Amino acid sequence: MTLDIADFSEGPLRAERDPRGVVTLTLDDARRFNALGHEMLAALQKALNAIAADEGVRVVVLAANGKAFCAGHNLKDMAAHPALAFYQELFAQCGRMMLAIHKLPVPVIAKVHGMATAAGCQLVAQCDLAVASEDASFATSGIQYGLFCSTPSVPLVRNVPAKMAMEMLLTGDFIDAQTALERGLVNRAVSTDQLDTEVEKLVAAIVSKPRVAVAMGKALVYQQREMGIESAYQLAGQTMAVNMMDADAQEGARAFAEKRRPAWKHA
Amino acid sequence: MTLDIADFSEGPLRAERDPRGVVTLTLDDARRFNALGHEMLAALQKALNAIAADEGVRVVVLAANGKAFCAGHNLKDMAAHPALAFYQELFAQCGRMMLAIHKLPVPVIAKVHGMATAAGCQLVAQCDLAVASEDASFATSGIQYGLFCSTPSVPLVRNVPAKMAMEMLLTGDFIDAQTALERGLVNRAVSTDQLDTEVEKLVAAIVSKPRVAVAMGKALVYQQREMGIESAYQLAGQTMAVNMMDADAQEGARAFAEKRRPAWKHA
Amino acid sequence: MTLDIADFSEGPLRAERDPRGVVTLTLDDARRFNALGHEMLAALQKALNAIAADEGVRVVVLAANGKAFCAGHNLKDMAAHPALAFYQELFAQCGRMMLAIHKLPVPVIAKVHGMATAAGCQLVAQCDLAVASEDASFATSGIQYGLFCSTPSVPLVRNVPAKMAMEMLLTGDFIDAQTALERGLVNRAVSTDQLDTEVEKLVAAIVSKPRVAVAMGKALVYQQREMGIESAYQLAGQTMAVNMMDADAQEGARAFAEKRRPAWKHA
Repeated sequence: MTLDIADFSEGPLRAERDPRGVVTLTLDDARRFNALGHEMLAALQKALNAIAADEGVRVVVLAANGKAFCAGHNLKDMAAHPALAFYQELFAQCGRMMLAIHKLPVPVIAKVHGMATAAGCQLVAQCDLAVASEDASFATSGIQYGLFCSTPSVPLVRNVPAKMAMEMLLTGDFIDAQTALERGLVNRAVSTDQLDTEVEKLVAAIVSKPRVAVAMGKALVYQQREMGIESAYQLAGQTMAVNMMDADAQEGARAFAEKRRPAWKHA
Repeated sequence: MTLDIADFSEGPLRAERDPRGVVTLTLDDARRFNALGHEMLAALQKALNAIAADEGVRVVVLAANGKAFCAGHNLKDMAAHPALAFYQELFAQCGRMMLAIHKLPVPVIAKVHGMATAAGCQLVAQCDLAVASEDASFATSGIQYGLFCSTPSVPLVRNVPAKMAMEMLLTGDFIDAQTALERGLVNRAVSTDQLDTEVEKLVAAIVSKPRVAVAMGKALVYQQREMGIESAYQLAGQTMAVNMMDADAQEGARAFAEKRRPAWKHA
Repeated sequence: MTLDIADFSEGPLRAERDPRGVVTLTLDDARRFNALGHEMLAALQKALNAIAADEGVRVVVLAANGKAFCAGHNLKDMAAHPALAFYQELFAQCGRMMLAIHKLPVPVIAKVHGMATAAGCQLVAQCDLAVASEDASFATSGIQYGLFCSTPSVPLVRNVPAKMAMEMLLTGDFIDAQTALERGLVNRAVSTDQLDTEVEKLVAAIVSKPRVAVAMGKALVYQQREMGIESAYQLAGQTMAVNMMDADAQEGARAFAEKRRPAWKHA
C-alpha cells in the first residue's frame, strides 16, 4: 500500500511527495482557517493511514495555506449540532488522527505560520518536531468560548512546563513564536523567509538516516517515557539490540570502524 | 455550603471575597514567618473545604502578610515533639491540604513576595499558577537542618526540570524570582509594585470564563497527565464532549458563529 | 564493605577519595575516547557496588581524562561481534550500571568537558547533577551510524523537554554547553578554568548535609515521580516522618530552635 497523492488533488488537504520520500501535507481550507472539521480530519486520517503503510515515505511535513495554520475545530458546525453523540464522535475522530501522528513510523514536522489555536495548537504539540515562523502564534483558546481545551491539553502538558500549560489553558491567551520556543512547544522560531530552509534542515537530517532505526526509535521513545525507569531500560536495551542486528546498523558500525561514510540499504 | 469570611476574622489566616467570587486567602502570622503549623494548616483546610463546596467562588489568590511568604513547617514546634506519630500526622495534614488545592474546582494563584522555603516553596509549586515579585526567593531548605524536603519534592518535580529540582533539594540553596520563572516554578516575575496588577490580570482572565468549563478542565489536566497518552485522549475526548453540552459552551459556540460576545449563565 | 581505591590503580577507571568521603571516578581511556566497552562498564559497576555499600562515601564525581568526556559504546568492538546475544548483554550491562547510579544512596555529579556522545551523553543525563565546561558538547549520535540512541533516550526524556529530546535523537546533532543548560541536561555551564570550582561548590553543599537525609531524599524523589500525585504524597509524607526521627534531623530542628549551627553525628 502506498500514499497516492492523486487522492488529495481535491478536498481540504494537499499531498506532495518528493523523490526522497518526503511527504508534505498541506491544510488547504484557508476560507475556514483550516479548521479541523469532519472532512479535514478524514483526509488527514486517510493520508496518515496510507503513509503508515508506505515504506517509501521517510518524513512528513505538516504545513498550511492561508493566513492561519489551523483554527482548531469548527465551532460554527459544532453550534449547529447540539448533541452529545455528535461531539463524542468528533473528539474521538480527532483523537484517532492525533494518535496516528504519534504512532506513525516516520517523524512528523509541523511547519507553522500564522495562528495555531485550540486543536490547531494541539496539532503542533502532537507533532514530533515543530518549526515556527516569527509571525506564528499559539493559543488553547477554547475556554474563550466556554469549551476548555481538554484534548489539546494532552500533548500540551507532555511538551510544556506545567504552570505554563495551565496558564495557556485557563486564560486562552496567545503566546508568540519565541515564547513557544522557550517553553518547548516548538524546536525553532525563525524569520518568515527562513521557514522553508529550517524545515528542510530537519528533513535532510532525517532522510539521511536509515528508516528502520528512525521508526524503532520514535516508537521506543514514546513507549518508554510512559514506563518506570527500570522497565524503560529493559525495553530500550532490547530495542537497541534488535536495531543493532539490522543490516544498516551493521553497515554503520563497520563504516565507523573503517572511517568511511555508511552506505545505507534502506535509507 | 458557602465560604463565610467571618470564620477567618481571627487566627492565622485572613479571607476576603469580592463580588466577582475572587477569594483572597492571606497567611497572616508574620511573627512566625507564616509557618505551616497545625493551626495554619487547619485554617487553610477549612477554607479550601468551604471554597470547594461554594459555587459562587471563581478563583483563589493565596497571599501572605509580613516579610516572608511562608517559611514552611514550624521546626521549633517539631523539635518539641520528637515522636513518629506526631510527624506522620503533621505531614499527612499538610499533604491533605496540598491535595485540596490540587482538587479544588477553581484555580489557585500563589501571589509570592519574600521567602518561600520548604513547605512554603511547596505551596507555590502546588498552586495552579504563581506570580512572584522580584524580591521573592525560593528554597527547599529542609536539608540544611537534616530534613530532606520530601513532600515539597512532589509538586517541585512536577513543575521544574529534573536536575534543577534535584539541585534545589540537595543543596537547599535559594533561587531568585527570575530563576524561578526560567525553571517553571512561577508564571511571572515582576517588580514589587506590579505584583497586584499582574495577579489581577490572571484573575480577570479566569473570572471571565464559565465556571463549569474551568472546573472540568483543571480536573482533566491533572488526571490525564498521570495516564498513558491513549487513555488520556479517551478521557479528554469524553470530558470535552460533556463540556460542550453545557449551556455556556453552547452559548459560546453560538456567539462565535454569530460573531458576538458570549453571555454566560454561570460565569 | 568499602571502596578500595587500590582496586582501580590499573585499568580504564581511576578512583580517588578525599577525607570528606568525596569519591572521584575518572574515565581514563583517552585513546578510546573513554568508550563504554565491557571493561569500562565492569569497572564502573564494581566501583558503584563498592560505593553503595560504603557508608563513608558522601558524594561521587564522575570525571574523564583526555579530549572527550565519553564517546559512548565502542562501535568498532560492536562491529566485530554481529550477534544479538552480544548486543543484548552489552546493553543490559550498560543499563545495570546506569541504574546503579540511579539507585546509589549518594548523589553523583557529572563533571563534563569535551564531547559526551551516545551512551556518554546518557551518562551525563543519568547523573543526579551535572556541571559542564564551555568546551563540552552533547549528542545522541548513534542514529548517524544507523543505531538510534534508545537507551540514552531513557534518562534524556526525563531531563530535557520532549521536542528538544526528539530533535537530538533524530538528528544526532551536537548541542553546546549553554544549550544543554537551557534544556535542563546540565546544572551549570562554566568556563573551563571554573569547572573544578563549580563542581566543588556542589560537592561542598552536599557533604555539609547529613548522609541519611540525602540518601532517603534521593531515593524518594525518583520513586515518587513515577507515581500518581496522591500516592506520591503518601510515600513522601512517610519518608519525611521517618527522616525526622533520625538523630541528625532532631539535632537540626533543635539547632534551628536554638539559633545555632547543627552538629551532625553522621555527616
